[in-house]
Amino acid sequence: MSVFSLHPRLEADTVPVASLGLCRVLLARDSRFPWLILVPEKPSLRDLHDLGRSDRNTAMDEIDTASRILMALHSADKINVAALGNMVPQLHIHVIARFTDDAAWPAPVWGIGSPEPYDDDSLDKALITLQNAFA
Amino acid sequence: MSVFSLHPRLEADTVPVASLGLCRVLLARDSRFPWLILVPEKPSLRDLHDLGRSDRNTAMDEIDTASRILMALHSADKINVAALGNMVPQLHIHVIARFTDDAAWPAPVWGIGSPEPYDDDSLDKALITLQNAFA
Repeated sequence: MSVFSLHPRLEADTVPVASLGLCRVLLARDSRFPWLILVPEKPSLRDLHDLGRSDRNTAMDEIDTASRILMALHSADKINVAALGNMVPQLHIHVIARFTDDAAWPAPVWGIGSPEPYDDDSLDKALITLQNAFA
Repeated sequence: MSVFSLHPRLEADTVPVASLGLCRVLLARDSRFPWLILVPEKPSLRDLHDLGRSDRNTAMDEIDTASRILMALHSADKINVAALGNMVPQLHIHVIARFTDDAAWPAPVWGIGSPEPYDDDSLDKALITLQNAFA
């Protein structure tokens, strides 16, 4: 029987924030961008169209929740939402707060420069803030 | 009263394919990738979270339809779905068929090389094939 587990690369590059019902919410270990990654907690999903209709709508609700939380916490200029998965085959959806003065603007964030890890204090603070927002 | 119109940059960079109910489907003028762009035909939308719940679900259904059509027509290795909009502020959703030997793989397609326009015959053929698939 196939069970859900997180791809090792997602596990390494993120910190868990919350579970919303369908998706686990992860925070990317890159302090340059407020960057969440939503992973539906079901096995064997690769593309968005692998989700059935009901899960698809739930995923969309959870993307919406994550987007609104990032907007509220960071007064972002824009939210980028993307399911790419060319490098990590497990279905995961990026929800990223963007600013007109951020390190990649106006380009997409992928492949621009190198991730800047959070220091311990900033990571703790970011996690507590996000966990309260998702609670 | 605000009415829907296509952003001039989307108008210039694409060819119309179909209208699905909520979204207008456009084909990007870049023959390197089977690349559709879905634009909800409502005024004043910028981010995915500007859509109400019902429109959000409809958008997700239409993204699903577009993804399945690209998969069926091109036997793609992967579908990339993204709402970015850092350059063009009107809400639009990219649905792109990707191949492990395409011009950008495994990177996202944005900002990689230059678009390669279709020649007239290939564009006609691509449009007819897509219009039949969406009919």
